[in-house]
Amino acid sequence: MAAMDLNSDVGESFGNWTFGDDARIIESVSSVNVACGFHAGDPTGIRATCAAAASAGVTVGAHPGYRDLAGFGRRFMDVDPSQLTDDVVYQIGALQALARAAGTAVKYVKPHGALYNTIAVHEGQARAVVRSVREVDDTLPLLVLPNSVIEAEARSAGLRTVVEAFADRAYLPDGSLVSRRERGAVLRDESDVVEHVLRIAAEREVVAIDGSRVRVNAESICVHGDTPGAVAMAAAVRRALASAGVTVGAFA
Amino acid sequence: MAAMDLNSDVGESFGNWTFGDDARIIESVSSVNVACGFHAGDPTGIRATCAAAASAGVTVGAHPGYRDLAGFGRRFMDVDPSQLTDDVVYQIGALQALARAAGTAVKYVKPHGALYNTIAVHEGQARAVVRSVREVDDTLPLLVLPNSVIEAEARSAGLRTVVEAFADRAYLPDGSLVSRRERGAVLRDESDVVEHVLRIAAEREVVAIDGSRVRVNAESICVHGDTPGAVAMAAAVRRALASAGVTVGAFA
Amino acid sequence: MAAMDLNSDVGESFGNWTFGDDARIIESVSSVNVACGFHAGDPTGIRATCAAAASAGVTVGAHPGYRDLAGFGRRFMDVDPSQLTDDVVYQIGALQALARAAGTAVKYVKPHGALYNTIAVHEGQARAVVRSVREVDDTLPLLVLPNSVIEAEARSAGLRTVVEAFADRAYLPDGSLVSRRERGAVLRDESDVVEHVLRIAAEREVVAIDGSRVRVNAESICVHGDTPGAVAMAAAVRRALASAGVTVGAFA
Amino acid sequence: MAAMDLNSDVGESFGNWTFGDDARIIESVSSVNVACGFHAGDPTGIRATCAAAASAGVTVGAHPGYRDLAGFGRRFMDVDPSQLTDDVVYQIGALQALARAAGTAVKYVKPHGALYNTIAVHEGQARAVVRSVREVDDTLPLLVLPNSVIEAEARSAGLRTVVEAFADRAYLPDGSLVSRRERGAVLRDESDVVEHVLRIAAEREVVAIDGSRVRVNAESICVHGDTPGAVAMAAAVRRALASAGVTVGAFA
Repeated sequence: MAAMDLNSDVGESFGNWTFGDDARIIESVSSVNVACGFHAGDPTGIRATCAAAASAGVTVGAHPGYRDLAGFGRRFMDVDPSQLTDDVVYQIGALQALARAAGTAVKYVKPHGALYNTIAVHEGQARAVVRSVREVDDTLPLLVLPNSVIEAEARSAGLRTVVEAFADRAYLPDGSLVSRRERGAVLRDESDVVEHVLRIAAEREVVAIDGSRVRVNAESICVHGDTPGAVAMAAAVRRALASAGVTVGAFA
Repeated sequence: MAAMDLNSDVGESFGNWTFGDDARIIESVSSVNVACGFHAGDPTGIRATCAAAASAGVTVGAHPGYRDLAGFGRRFMDVDPSQLTDDVVYQIGALQALARAAGTAVKYVKPHGALYNTIAVHEGQARAVVRSVREVDDTLPLLVLPNSVIEAEARSAGLRTVVEAFADRAYLPDGSLVSRRERGAVLRDESDVVEHVLRIAAEREVVAIDGSRVRVNAESICVHGDTPGAVAMAAAVRRALASAGVTVGAFA
Repeated sequence: MAAMDLNSDVGESFGNWTFGDDARIIESVSSVNVACGFHAGDPTGIRATCAAAASAGVTVGAHPGYRDLAGFGRRFMDVDPSQLTDDVVYQIGALQALARAAGTAVKYVKPHGALYNTIAVHEGQARAVVRSVREVDDTLPLLVLPNSVIEAEARSAGLRTVVEAFADRAYLPDGSLVSRRERGAVLRDESDVVEHVLRIAAEREVVAIDGSRVRVNAESICVHGDTPGAVAMAAAVRRALASAGVTVGAFA
Repeated sequence: MAAMDLNSDVGESFGNWTFGDDARIIESVSSVNVACGFHAGDPTGIRATCAAAASAGVTVGAHPGYRDLAGFGRRFMDVDPSQLTDDVVYQIGALQALARAAGTAVKYVKPHGALYNTIAVHEGQARAVVRSVREVDDTLPLLVLPNSVIEAEARSAGLRTVVEAFADRAYLPDGSLVSRRERGAVLRDESDVVEHVLRIAAEREVVAIDGSRVRVNAESICVHGDTPGAVAMAAAVRRALASAGVTVGAFA
């Protein structure tokens, strides 16, 4: 029987500002990428999210980002790799302590936003992130974009990599994502998303934007929880996977 | 033979700004209170300081503070105790990861600045700090002001407390410190400081500001490293203790 | 014919995080207290709010707070008065430039959150705020709690003070607010709020929590915009004032 | 008689951390680029520096940077141009208010660090900075690198541009700077720096790294004040210009 992980970003509130609906998205996924305080996440909110994940049996991963609250970690920053390593070690360590206090533990790492995008192509920053994970705990898997620099660097350093696919993103024939600047980059219709996800889970492939079929060996699918519509979409994906006999469960 | 710990605050640079002379103060002390990023300390500087401590055989403690970079953690903040607990857990966890990456480990906790002063008298915040330490690792001792609320709260919660004295501070007959707002609060002469420290180490007492002798059961003495003069004073204290046959060594 | 100002806090989003519904609350009030970046508010959001106020003919005031994004400026900070003066000058100046760029101008000052509460009772911080306003522009009025230290300090320094009342807060017989820790402190029923506001606008008095009538000489009434319910309440207040023949207009 | 402006970065301390020796560098220069709080500078330090400049008759300019305290504004950030405009407006406005409170005024703008470098080549960010200056006060000149994108954008928008040269940097034959990554990029010998500066002031040219002479039409020369050596170098430059009969004075 097929198995698949569903992951989503959580813990991204900050102080008086809320972001996303962590309580509800946790009901639909098997892994949560928890913000670590640099792009989002205050200690109390992070901990509450870890506690909610723990009581739902959902696996916690670290979601470190650039030190950029005002930009939500979505802007490239030309951080020196040796400093980036320390920034990521700091963030994972902080989350580990809060996760333990909440009765759970950090089981994997998925970088956030602009850092995620940068390490897909930027060797220096990719190696910096790999070094962080190795220094903190070299048994932690890294959740990665397939065929990326970070995937190659992590593997060559002996880290386990877990490839993810995206529930609501269109693909090019070469297996990469259609740029968000292009029309059709984001799937907005629930039935399209469900069909896309089921194909990934059951057949390990997607229909690319040109109609061709592309192999996608994902162990996890990323869903969003930052709007009411996104939360409903995630729930629909979960139900569809269950109906199709796919076991939704954490990879870590 | 008498034994005594010497502790000092370090790791308090931030980005491009340096503070104190960590490399030199580490030569004179046995324990360093390392900033954790909220009042001071960036990940790369924290890690470098941990590495320097590790290679000198100096013990690392966590030095968490209020989230107040602009005030260096020296201004009271009316932080809700439950949030304070999480803020301190976050900071200790972050330091633990950097300390491990630097080949050492966090062995105790000493709160910083206004937080240190507040928990000496403020029950809610004192309990919050105690809860943090218990949640992170209940074997970590807390370095405390004697006869303080934090000392009582930590003991009643089963934490080990380690009392500290101050190398350059005058005492009142009741064993408390002369307020910094009073004349004579700070000892500035090297021979006065050395005599004061030797009496604490060898006789477990100080001469109070009125000439009376007061018992001080300190296991550690706090010295400063934030000015060239302070670093020289710390070195003099270390030499004097060695000459007097006192073994300088970490309590943790 | 009676006249009354309605004021509300706006501009309190930050980067990716939104707070309140500025567009809608601006439709109901005559003055907006715009966050200045220390407790909330990023430059782009602040400017957009100023532009919305300008195009609605709503007056802009500065809403400076403590430098505490994580606490939304709601936690007392023991800031040195001379530093507080400079912090407030900085914030007002930043807002002035953004307001001008948006086609409007800063016309008054109302401190935020814990700073507002502190200067009602704390002489040093109250004087610090008065000094800021005088240094920036001594023709700017200060919006104040009646019978507060800030009211007295501002008046004795020659600043214009404008007293405000609260649309949804219960009053004690002495004209002060019922503490939020007490039952009944906040009026939640729309008809109660409307009756309370109309009495303030038309009769310059409120019915205190013990049933007695108390004089309230407010030139402005504070309404909230941080929840959909609050926005609807503000609209109801505006409609009721209009129906009662009260002219809603800015004091500045 | 020749005239020349000398400019230097100041106000870059933050809270408890000091940076540079503003009091001494102000004795040697005619214009100071004052940090505005995003990359460095707290309101009290900024104001004190403005007051020192005012009492020395030194002109104040705004020195806005990226919002990156941890990186001192020295790391490229991919900030959206429309947000960058607002970030710079905010910073200039804040400084204007502090400068006025200190008895002086902002007379020009020189962006800091990575922002300075980026707008020399990046059209979007260059235009964003130009827009900021125009929105705040279109009579403020911009201090620029010659032959840069920012120079062209500012001129075509009708802003006055003032070209600067660098006291301690080697030049290529095309009039651009030798990259800091190359050997010989920085002049370290006092007599070399003095000769270089005198040639710029008196002959409007430099000797490039290959020995050729290059025309440099600078109205201002940038000197450093961040180390004791730099301060002494600036003083030597000032003395040499005076001895050579060059009037050192602000361009604005």
